[in-house]
Amino acid sequence: LFSSESRKCTLIPGHGIGPEISAAVQKIFAAANVPIEWESVDVTPVKGPDGKFGIPQAAIDSVNRNKIGLKGPLMTPVGKGYRSLNLALRKEFNLYANVRPCRSLEGFKTLYDEVDVVTIRENTEGEYSGIEHEIVDGVVQSIKLITEEASRRVAEFAFQYAIDNKRKKVTAVHKANIMRMSDGLFLRCCREMAKKYPDVKFEERYLDTVCLNMVQDPTQYDVLVMPNLYGDILSDMCAGLIGGLGLTPSGNIGLNGALFESVHGTAPDIAGQDKANPTALLLSAVMMLRYMGLNEHAAKIEKACFDTIREAKHLTGDLGGKSKCSEFTNAICEKVTAA
Amino acid sequence: LFSSESRKCTLIPGHGIGPEISAAVQKIFAAANVPIEWESVDVTPVKGPDGKFGIPQAAIDSVNRNKIGLKGPLMTPVGKGYRSLNLALRKEFNLYANVRPCRSLEGFKTLYDEVDVVTIRENTEGEYSGIEHEIVDGVVQSIKLITEEASRRVAEFAFQYAIDNKRKKVTAVHKANIMRMSDGLFLRCCREMAKKYPDVKFEERYLDTVCLNMVQDPTQYDVLVMPNLYGDILSDMCAGLIGGLGLTPSGNIGLNGALFESVHGTAPDIAGQDKANPTALLLSAVMMLRYMGLNEHAAKIEKACFDTIREAKHLTGDLGGKSKCSEFTNAICEKVTAA
Ligand SMILES: CC(C)[C@H](C(=O)O)[C@@H](O)C(=O)O
Ligand SMILES: CC(C)[C@H](C(=O)O)[C@@H](O)C(=O)O
Repeated sequence: LFSSESRKCTLIPGHGIGPEISAAVQKIFAAANVPIEWESVDVTPVKGPDGKFGIPQAAIDSVNRNKIGLKGPLMTPVGKGYRSLNLALRKEFNLYANVRPCRSLEGFKTLYDEVDVVTIRENTEGEYSGIEHEIVDGVVQSIKLITEEASRRVAEFAFQYAIDNKRKKVTAVHKANIMRMSDGLFLRCCREMAKKYPDVKFEERYLDTVCLNMVQDPTQYDVLVMPNLYGDILSDMCAGLIGGLGLTPSGNIGLNGALFESVHGTAPDIAGQDKANPTALLLSAVMMLRYMGLNEHAAKIEKACFDTIREAKHLTGDLGGKSKCSEFTNAICEKVTAA
Repeated sequence: LFSSESRKCTLIPGHGIGPEISAAVQKIFAAANVPIEWESVDVTPVKGPDGKFGIPQAAIDSVNRNKIGLKGPLMTPVGKGYRSLNLALRKEFNLYANVRPCRSLEGFKTLYDEVDVVTIRENTEGEYSGIEHEIVDGVVQSIKLITEEASRRVAEFAFQYAIDNKRKKVTAVHKANIMRMSDGLFLRCCREMAKKYPDVKFEERYLDTVCLNMVQDPTQYDVLVMPNLYGDILSDMCAGLIGGLGLTPSGNIGLNGALFESVHGTAPDIAGQDKANPTALLLSAVMMLRYMGLNEHAAKIEKACFDTIREAKHLTGDLGGKSKCSEFTNAICEKVTAA
């Protein structure tokens, strides 16, 4: 996908705290001498030909050119004339697999130790098809769309991810006891893919059962693959186990490129005050580096981030510390430089 | 609904451990002199006129006559000719609201203290509509059906439940940012109902956010109301917080009656060995008593059950004890008799 010269990455700083945490990531990347060049774009919605507000063409062009991007939080526009920018980006670039690893951070205590799960979410269809009708007044149907193509694609991604990341097991999460045809198709695709990956253990579990088990003992799970909405739910729940969305990275993998993003909000209440925690965006950027094959840079930055959190000397407010975003960032930069 | 003479209740002992735990409940009810008469029915599936296996007519007639029932776990028949018995019962009796309280049990330690939430689940439509099509090979759609009637009915139930049970807040759980029309309709019905109950606090939250918050601090929630599938997920997750499905009661409330049930499985591995824990079914029976207005009997039995668990002298294996089901049951009976 990448030629050795063209290591340009699109950067979508986003709204609210987005610009500050993006600047933090850029600073840390510079300290680590990461051989990429940022192409920063703005995604403030612009009115399209259909009168609806959408992503500016220049931003789309940039991602299409670079095939890789990092994205901060986007505000959710309210009102009928707006589309969700997050969803628009997933659709525009056919980002079919959403990967969210959740691993307990040493030194950051929650109720759970040793969480280490990865949710892999089908990212293009399912309950997010956007197809809805009001049949008669007061009777609405939403369509959950499951295709063999998308199910197989994300199933394959999950097993390949397990192999590449030396993980042991893939759990397909479903409600095929209720949605026999749609979740049934998804499940069948997972089962068939499992046969092609005999070295990865495969199991199937009901979504409700996974939710119950996950809060009791998350260590029983490893990689989980599931339709769109179930991934939305489970990934947030798993993030909760290890400390919330401020700590969990996310990658959206497509056929032609990939977009990495922090999935927390824009936090308008603290925006511009040098208080935000850049960890989720930084760890997303680390995922991006691994995706690009820049494994050593990834490892160095990740270690510096984890060490800084473990030492707990320069933590932001959400992590229980009193440091500013810039102090936390500088602490990571120092470790990266010293490494 | 009930005349003072006709306190007959249908009892569906169910499969696996069902008969043992049902017998335990009957024994405790007898010790407490509960003024009801059990009408025990069998729900082993029988072949209907359409060639599919379903609930025997005698069982349906019994519930229709008595308008109230208690149900142990049912096996899930596998294969195309079978319908889910659980779902068939909910449909047959139009049991529109599923109520599952989850409260931490004193003396039974989990990671969470002071959980006290009640999930109220729309129980007749949504993702459980059963309407699915294969449009072309490999392309399936399942229909999520949301109606104003059912949404308003369950919203009203939730607020009324909050009033009757002296609860402070109702949270509507939704993904109306994605399913704008269907979840949007559900949410609108909740908002409108909230206006009629000014004494109950009302809030709206995304399902993913609730899942994240719930594992971090469940005490922020009180009563939660939501479409069918979300209730399936959240109720299991909340059960996990307090120790699992062996401890949580469930009631399905309909227009013409109600069915109370334990929602754990049939546990075939320990069936017939006097090892099962009857708590979930007993607490479901306690909910049933309250529904019937037999509040004093309900309180006495509930206290005896909680005290027995807190004292931890006669606990079944799943609760960390070594006692048989009959010993646990006898301990509760003794307290009930002494009360
Ligand atoms: C913001 C919202 C549209 C989105 C979703 O529902 O997918 C978010 O919850 C996520 O998980 O990325
Ligand atoms: C057994 C199954 C059909 C059922 C459901 O999905 O509703 C169960 O999980 C429940 O919560 O009662």
